[in-house]
Amino acid sequence: MSDNNYYTSEQHGDFEVYELGDFVLEGGETLRGATLAYTCYGKLNSQGDNAILFPVMFSGTHSAMAPYVGEGLALDPEKYFIVIPNQLGGGLSTSPHNTNGPYQAGYFPNLSIGDDVRAQNQLLTHLGVKHLQLVTGWSMGAQQTYEWAVRYPNMVERAAPIAGTAKTTPHCSLYVDVFCEALTSDPAWNNGAYKESSDVEVGLRRLSHVFAMMGVCQNFYNDELWADYGFSSKEDLLKGLWENWFLPMDPNNLLCMAKKWNSGDVSLHTNGDLSAALASITANVFVISFEQDMFISPADSMKEQQMIPRSELVSIPSPWGHFTMLGISPEDFKAIDSSLKRLLETESL
Amino acid sequence: MSDNNYYTSEQHGDFEVYELGDFVLEGGETLRGATLAYTCYGKLNSQGDNAILFPVMFSGTHSAMAPYVGEGLALDPEKYFIVIPNQLGGGLSTSPHNTNGPYQAGYFPNLSIGDDVRAQNQLLTHLGVKHLQLVTGWSMGAQQTYEWAVRYPNMVERAAPIAGTAKTTPHCSLYVDVFCEALTSDPAWNNGAYKESSDVEVGLRRLSHVFAMMGVCQNFYNDELWADYGFSSKEDLLKGLWENWFLPMDPNNLLCMAKKWNSGDVSLHTNGDLSAALASITANVFVISFEQDMFISPADSMKEQQMIPRSELVSIPSPWGHFTMLGISPEDFKAIDSSLKRLLETESL
Repeated sequence: MSDNNYYTSEQHGDFEVYELGDFVLEGGETLRGATLAYTCYGKLNSQGDNAILFPVMFSGTHSAMAPYVGEGLALDPEKYFIVIPNQLGGGLSTSPHNTNGPYQAGYFPNLSIGDDVRAQNQLLTHLGVKHLQLVTGWSMGAQQTYEWAVRYPNMVERAAPIAGTAKTTPHCSLYVDVFCEALTSDPAWNNGAYKESSDVEVGLRRLSHVFAMMGVCQNFYNDELWADYGFSSKEDLLKGLWENWFLPMDPNNLLCMAKKWNSGDVSLHTNGDLSAALASITANVFVISFEQDMFISPADSMKEQQMIPRSELVSIPSPWGHFTMLGISPEDFKAIDSSLKRLLETESL
Repeated sequence: MSDNNYYTSEQHGDFEVYELGDFVLEGGETLRGATLAYTCYGKLNSQGDNAILFPVMFSGTHSAMAPYVGEGLALDPEKYFIVIPNQLGGGLSTSPHNTNGPYQAGYFPNLSIGDDVRAQNQLLTHLGVKHLQLVTGWSMGAQQTYEWAVRYPNMVERAAPIAGTAKTTPHCSLYVDVFCEALTSDPAWNNGAYKESSDVEVGLRRLSHVFAMMGVCQNFYNDELWADYGFSSKEDLLKGLWENWFLPMDPNNLLCMAKKWNSGDVSLHTNGDLSAALASITANVFVISFEQDMFISPADSMKEQQMIPRSELVSIPSPWGHFTMLGISPEDFKAIDSSLKRLLETESL
């Protein structure tokens, strides 16, 4: 257990903690006394069927996605009971940095997207949720969304995976490897046995540069579009957005999530047949793609969307690339929110 | 001076060495006893005006570009006197790894694209070349091409910068920084004071992964296009192409070229006014862009092309992205060669 005051309600706002108990992972190991951190908005109705699940991305917590919840928005707490679960390994739930004993820090077991989704299902049952009007999430949140739609088709009416894939692509996996190498190249990482996460500052800065390079598109830099968003220079963008985001985080937590990202694959349910897995989805699906996304190309999104029976591809252009979802541009936010609204208006089977 | 038998004629084929003498760099330092390695094809005519100059890319030597020279090709040695100069710092010319004394290894002075071009001009004068029918080069070779067209407009009839810019873009510069960080993160790099370049193997492998990620487009991996080119898996591509390319090289040489890459800017001739610099070009110019290039986006190429009076944008689609120029795909090779042929057929001013 290492001290890191980033993973607190002071930094991320209040959250609830659900006791998963001794949670057996798909890899066979057991997270003893595991917890799942989450937040809720709105009220569950008596039928337990007005719920929306909104899992989070790599390195993110519920607080990053909370702006998409609000009156008049698609995720309207006046209408829906909205649950934002934090990732296992993400820092607020059971994670490398807050685990003691044999599984602590660099010895934390490998997690799968399926582990998150099973833990979330346990939480929803506990909360009385019977049916999900929508599951949506961005990036690793999209991986969880696909996993929900394939694993629990009877519970999911609608799904909107945003800028993420049902099966991690080889190029995206190379990307994950590259940013992990940027982090673990820091000798202070020491195979995960550092004392304070800030000891690995150089590695965290390097990782943030890889995100900076691949996270938004070329002309965001080349046409100085950062100036529209309050940054004074490219250097200020690197420091003020990317380094500022990653520097307070725990390297083992990041590496735990990265491994999970790399292993995402719904075709594990169908003996490796991705089209069979996606064909089994009964939800209405909007696959939301960002046109200039260098992590998940529009072609990657389209390939998967075409394997899903009741689906539509929604393509959103923005120089923010993969990070369009941050909604820093009001237009991007609106485009995403409108798509979710339109999906929520579709009739389910 | 460190031993590295990669930088030999056994590895790269025969080459000539021109003695530059005590070469004063734009940065003010002097490379004493500097040499410029080069190869020639064909014969210079008595007017000295049938020459073509074909400078090379980052980490490359004349041998990488030699396949573009041949009978029946655009760069036909039956018609033209073709000179391929190696970069200063590139390993065959004066470079960090083959320099002794105060400027050795990590203490090698910073070079500019202008230094290469001035050295090449000195070589061409020595060879009796009065006029260049064409200057063309890829990537850092394109930077040198632009520099030639701006610096010596009276000598350059035609220019074809291929997948490179007249001024390094901020995003491309971030890319260069990221791969340099991948290399220098290796503690064995030791600020350039390693004993053998192979000591920095881990850093060289990491650098090669950054190139692998950005060098070709996503679907090269995701659609397993590598299978068409004799690779047995993604891992085999990483090892057989990317790591194999960079592992024998000298880290200080690579870093020397990378700094030069980052500083490329023809607007240094016009007080920072890029459009004035490009407007001063009198050559017929084909700006050749690779549609899926992640280093140099088509938009970057087009922006510069539009500032050049007698110019045309040629866009070549290939999943090989920036590395289309390797010509591993025969179609790509043909598209590039045909464009150069067409440019050579244009009437000059």
